[in-house]
Amino acid sequence: MAEDWTSIRGGVTTPLGFRASAVDCGIKDPDKRRLDLALITSDTPVVAAATFTTNRVKAAPIRVSAEHLRHDEVQAIIANSGNANACTGPQGIKDAKQMAKSVAKALNLRQRQVMVCSTGMIGLPMPMDRIDPMIPKLVEGLAPTKVAGTDVAAAIMTSDTRSKEVAVKFKLGGKEVRIGACAKGAGMIDPNMATMLSFVTTDAELSKAELKRATTRAVEKSFNRITIDGDMSTNDTVIVFANGASGAAKIKSGSNEAEVFTKALTYVLIKLAKLLVSDGERVTKFVDICVRGASSYHHARMVAEAVAKSSLCKCSWNGEDANWGRIMDAVGYSGARIREELIDIYFDGVAATRNGMAAGTPVSKLRAVVKKQAFTINIDLHLGEANYNVFTSDLSPEYVEFNRSEYSMWKRAQGDTEQPAAE
Amino acid sequence: MAEDWTSIRGGVTTPLGFRASAVDCGIKDPDKRRLDLALITSDTPVVAAATFTTNRVKAAPIRVSAEHLRHDEVQAIIANSGNANACTGPQGIKDAKQMAKSVAKALNLRQRQVMVCSTGMIGLPMPMDRIDPMIPKLVEGLAPTKVAGTDVAAAIMTSDTRSKEVAVKFKLGGKEVRIGACAKGAGMIDPNMATMLSFVTTDAELSKAELKRATTRAVEKSFNRITIDGDMSTNDTVIVFANGASGAAKIKSGSNEAEVFTKALTYVLIKLAKLLVSDGERVTKFVDICVRGASSYHHARMVAEAVAKSSLCKCSWNGEDANWGRIMDAVGYSGARIREELIDIYFDGVAATRNGMAAGTPVSKLRAVVKKQAFTINIDLHLGEANYNVFTSDLSPEYVEFNRSEYSMWKRAQGDTEQPAAE
Repeated sequence: MAEDWTSIRGGVTTPLGFRASAVDCGIKDPDKRRLDLALITSDTPVVAAATFTTNRVKAAPIRVSAEHLRHDEVQAIIANSGNANACTGPQGIKDAKQMAKSVAKALNLRQRQVMVCSTGMIGLPMPMDRIDPMIPKLVEGLAPTKVAGTDVAAAIMTSDTRSKEVAVKFKLGGKEVRIGACAKGAGMIDPNMATMLSFVTTDAELSKAELKRATTRAVEKSFNRITIDGDMSTNDTVIVFANGASGAAKIKSGSNEAEVFTKALTYVLIKLAKLLVSDGERVTKFVDICVRGASSYHHARMVAEAVAKSSLCKCSWNGEDANWGRIMDAVGYSGARIREELIDIYFDGVAATRNGMAAGTPVSKLRAVVKKQAFTINIDLHLGEANYNVFTSDLSPEYVEFNRSEYSMWKRAQGDTEQPAAE
Repeated sequence: MAEDWTSIRGGVTTPLGFRASAVDCGIKDPDKRRLDLALITSDTPVVAAATFTTNRVKAAPIRVSAEHLRHDEVQAIIANSGNANACTGPQGIKDAKQMAKSVAKALNLRQRQVMVCSTGMIGLPMPMDRIDPMIPKLVEGLAPTKVAGTDVAAAIMTSDTRSKEVAVKFKLGGKEVRIGACAKGAGMIDPNMATMLSFVTTDAELSKAELKRATTRAVEKSFNRITIDGDMSTNDTVIVFANGASGAAKIKSGSNEAEVFTKALTYVLIKLAKLLVSDGERVTKFVDICVRGASSYHHARMVAEAVAKSSLCKCSWNGEDANWGRIMDAVGYSGARIREELIDIYFDGVAATRNGMAAGTPVSKLRAVVKKQAFTINIDLHLGEANYNVFTSDLSPEYVEFNRSEYSMWKRAQGDTEQPAAE
C-alpha cells in the first residue's frame, strides 16, 4: 500500500501556527554554552493529547502536566534538560508550577495552559534561580522558523549524541496538513515510555477524543516497543498539539481522514522511536525482534521483550555473534507458551535455528548479518497467529562505562564538587 | 538464636557412604587438561529430591533426570561441563540417556538409577566419543575422600573462577549427621534457578516427601533469590541425596529434627548461593537488596527483583556511586504498589532517601558504603509488613566484554575453528 504522506525536513515548527525558542540556562553544564530550556507555543489554543510514564515514581512536571491536560485551551510546552525534577517532593511540584506560571505570565496565558517537562538527573533540586530569569528571553525568542524547531530538539537532549526531528505533510480533503515532531532519548529506555520526551505538533483539526485515540495507537506501535536498557524512567512524556491552522476540515471519527492522520502520526513516532534506539547510550546495533506464530498477542510480546532485554543476547550482538542458543534461552524463560521443538529463528531471513536446533547454516553467513549495523531477528513459534515486535539495541562495555557514575558526569552541571545528587 | 550446626571443611563426600570421582575428557578444552566429567555415588540407594529450571526450553539431561527421579533407588549423578546438551533435539536425549546407561553398566545399576546433568554452551552436539570411553576410568576413580569431592566441584565449573563447596555437621537425636554440597554458577544467573548446578549429599535419613519439602524451602530462600544477569538458564539443577548412612533415626515430618535439618540445609544452600553471586562473571560487588514494609510478599519480591536486575542500578554500584535516584526509578516501574513519598532507602543503614527524597546525608558517607565489596540496600516502603530479599551483583564493562562472543571462547573446546555452536 502506498503511503499517503511525504517526509519533509522539519520539526515542531513545520505545521502552521507554531513557534519555538530555546535558551541556555546553565542547567546541563554551567561552563559550556548548551541549550537546555525550550518553549513551544501555538498561536491559538490547541487540542492536546499526552502519554505519560507508567512508572509509579513520577517526576513533578508529569504530575503538573497531567493536571493541566485536563483543562482545555492548552497552548504551550516548556521543557528543560539537565535536571529531571524527580524525587524532589513538594518543592519539585512548586518549581514545576513556577515554570508554567512564569511562561504563562510572559505569554499572557493562564498557568494551566502551559505543559511542563523535565529530563536529566533524578533527585536534584531544580536550579530555579537559573531558569526563571531566562523565561522572558525564551519568550522573546519565539519564532516559526525551522531553526527554532531544531533549537528545541537540541535543547531537550541529555546523553543523546544528535538531535531528532521528523516531519511529514499530507492531504486531508484537498488541503495540505503537516505533522512535525522532535524527541530525545538515550538512557532509561524501555517499553511503555522511557527517559524520553517527544513533542508533536500538527495543523490538522481534530476533537480531543480523536486526537487521544490516534496518539494512543501511534505510541503503542512506536515508543512502547523500544528498549535499550530495560529501565523505565520517571519522566517520559509524549505531547501532541493540534491547532487546526491548516484550514483543513475537522477530522471526523471513523473517517478515511482519521485513518490517514493516525497512520501518518504512527509513521512519525516509529521513525522517532527508531532514532532513539539507534542513538541509545553507546549503542552499536539496531535490532528489530519480530515474533510471529504466538498463541496470543500477549505471549508474542512476552517473547519479544524477553529477547530484547536479555543481557546475554545483547552482549552477543555487540560481539557480532549470532548466538541463537541465548535467544532460545530467553524465549524459554519469557513465560510465554512455547514448544521448544517448533521454534525457528532467522537473522535477516537466514535460518539459525529450525525445530529448536541448529539449522546447519554456515556460521559465516549468520555472522555476516550480525556484523551489519541494523538487522532483524525473526522468531517463529509455530503455535498460532499472533505477532509482536520490539526495537532494541546491543549492550556494550561502553554503556556500562558510561553509566558507572552519573555523579561524576553531572556534578559539574551543579557547580558542586562535593554535594551532588544523592545529597 | 544459636545455630544448631557447625560448618566444616568438606563437600559431597563429607557425609558417610558417598564417593566421588572426576576425569578430564577434553570437553571444556581439548588442549588444556581440565576436569570436566564428574560422578557422585552413594553406596546404597538414596532418597532423592531435585529442583529443575523453570525455563520452558529445557536441556536434554533435565528431561532425562526428571524422568529418573520419579523412580526410587536413585544412586548416582553424572555431570559434565563444557557442553549444556541443550537445543540438541532427539540426539541430545539419546546422548543424555547413554551417559546414564554407561555409568549404570559400570556400577552394576539400572539406567534409571543415574541422574544426568550438563552445563556449558547451548546448541552443540555432545562429544560422546570423548565422554563414553572415559566412564570406566571415572568409575574406577570413585573414592570417599575429601579430595574426590573437591575434584567434582572443580569438574562442574564453567566460567567460575573458583570451586564452591560447603559442609556442615549437626546432631539429630544424639547422632551426628552431615550435609555436604558443591555448586557452580557464574553466568545466566537469575531467580528460579540459573546456569547453576548444585549437588547435595547427606547421611541423614528422611522420607522422600520430607526431603522434597526441606529442599523446596531451602531453594526458595537461596538459589531462587540470586540474580547476576537476569538470564535464567536451560540447565539449572539442584539434586539432594539422602542415604541414611549416619545411623540417626529417620526424621519424622513436623518434628524438631525436621526443622533442624531444613535450617541446616537452608544454611548450606544460602552459603552456596552467596558464593555463586560473589563469583559471578566479572562481578566486583555483592549486594543484598532487602525490601520491607511491602503490602504483600509478592509486591516485596517485585521491588527487590526490579532493583536487583536494573542495568542502571548495577552500573552505578560498579562505579561505586550510591545512586538512589535509579533505585527509586526501579521501585517505581517494578509494578508493585508503592507510595513514592513514603519510601526510605538505606545503604548499610546509612539513609540515602527519606520520604522519597534525598535524605541529606553527606555523599562521602554513602560512597564509603558502596566502595565496600559487599553491602546491603534496605528499601522500606512503609505500606505493610511483607519483606523479601535478593542477592545480586554489579554489572561491569568486563562482564559485557566477557560475554560479547561465547563463540570465540568455546570454539577451541570443540577443536573446531569454523563450524561452531550456531551451525
